[in-house]
Amino acid sequence: MSKNCLFCKIVKGEIPAAKVFESETVLGFKDINPSAPIHVLFISKTHTNDISELSIDPTALSDLFSSLTEYATTIPELKDGYRLIINKGPRGGQSVFHTHIHLLGGKQMQGF
Amino acid sequence: MSKNCLFCKIVKGEIPAAKVFESETVLGFKDINPSAPIHVLFISKTHTNDISELSIDPTALSDLFSSLTEYATTIPELKDGYRLIINKGPRGGQSVFHTHIHLLGGKQMQGF
Repeated sequence: MSKNCLFCKIVKGEIPAAKVFESETVLGFKDINPSAPIHVLFISKTHTNDISELSIDPTALSDLFSSLTEYATTIPELKDGYRLIINKGPRGGQSVFHTHIHLLGGKQMQGF
Repeated sequence: MSKNCLFCKIVKGEIPAAKVFESETVLGFKDINPSAPIHVLFISKTHTNDISELSIDPTALSDLFSSLTEYATTIPELKDGYRLIINKGPRGGQSVFHTHIHLLGGKQMQGF
């Protein structure tokens, strides 16, 4: 846990969040400022600053991604697809320095 | 390998690509239609259709992500951050059904 981390406070229950998924190790909750009809964040409960730190832990990384993709199979609006976004560092648009995956869906995402 | 997969053909050298990273298991190459000053795709050489399939293989998933984040540390324009995007399924904007991570950088990404 990181003392002043917003998402660690959500994990500890010190700050409320609209949870959509919870396991022993992973939490999913709604983004407070949604960019799509479905916009949730998935995090590992254990603190890492960003994706480069999480990437070197195969178990935690796979646990996070497979929790998210399993969750998505339970949501009819995500059946035909969704987009995952991970911002790394200030120039990537990362605002909370606890690794998180944005899951966006419920509409047709444009290809690029 | 999947016979008619575009990215498997790049792995096999049957279709050219502007490679930026290669290991025994991972390939990084420039997107042919870039959406940012830096826009490369990272793939596992072994075929999976999408992120839900790759997520359950901790070794391959971690290998792919850590190859990407290590590569990013070698590019000065990515030092202060970048964005990763993974499209899952047609409604997520996935157009090639070989799991790939878009790495976008070289400019300030907007938060959301």
